[in-house]
Amino acid sequence: MCSPYDPAQCPTVSEMLSRLGDKWSVLVIMVLRKGPQRFSDLKRAVVGISQRMLTLTLRALERDGMVKRTVYPTIPPRVEYELTEVGQSFSDPIEAVGAWVFNNYGKIHEARAEFDERTAAERGNDKLIRIG
Amino acid sequence: MCSPYDPAQCPTVSEMLSRLGDKWSVLVIMVLRKGPQRFSDLKRAVVGISQRMLTLTLRALERDGMVKRTVYPTIPPRVEYELTEVGQSFSDPIEAVGAWVFNNYGKIHEARAEFDERTAAERGNDKLIRIG
Repeated sequence: MCSPYDPAQCPTVSEMLSRLGDKWSVLVIMVLRKGPQRFSDLKRAVVGISQRMLTLTLRALERDGMVKRTVYPTIPPRVEYELTEVGQSFSDPIEAVGAWVFNNYGKIHEARAEFDERTAAERGNDKLIRIG
Repeated sequence: MCSPYDPAQCPTVSEMLSRLGDKWSVLVIMVLRKGPQRFSDLKRAVVGISQRMLTLTLRALERDGMVKRTVYPTIPPRVEYELTEVGQSFSDPIEAVGAWVFNNYGKIHEARAEFDERTAAERGNDKLIRIG
């Protein structure tokens, strides 16, 4: 057991939170919620991801036990990726975060514009005070 | 409206997912769920965070409209940080992710050990085949 607030005591929790920061992992997990996918399907669904980045992301997710890779002995071999039971259960809170961001990014935009305006005005006042 | 799977079309969604990757933001949000906190309280609760990193994290969260900073005109002035309504609502899915990781990091550890053993064995087999 470790404290979730102490990354030093709890390297895995802190690491997994960092993994989230990797937007590609989140996007790949979100696409895999729809069901098993081939590499080329994933590459098409996750716009902008490079072949190399998708390979690395899938391998990291496989290592964490989130994704299962199955090779079917056809000619040429067919390779499919799907969420494991653990990956499926992890994808629920991930989807909730994604949905929240998707539904609220307008508010974040507004907050940023308001903050930037306010801090610019404060910098302006500082200048006036310093000059005065 | 933008596609959540396309970071290029949807910069804010992708940015916010990246913000999650910043474990400090997540940890600060989790601590602020307990209620308003002074800078020194936060610094103590989020073990390992530097003064500078906490300042930057709080400022980014304030800019996004997640955190409200209040200065009370005492001597010396007291500064408190708290989640805004938006921050509170964002903290629910964040807490769910944190709780999931906290409850499942044992499984992730096991999956990694199993993966590393299996891929090491596969590399060993490749070597035998190449030698043979």
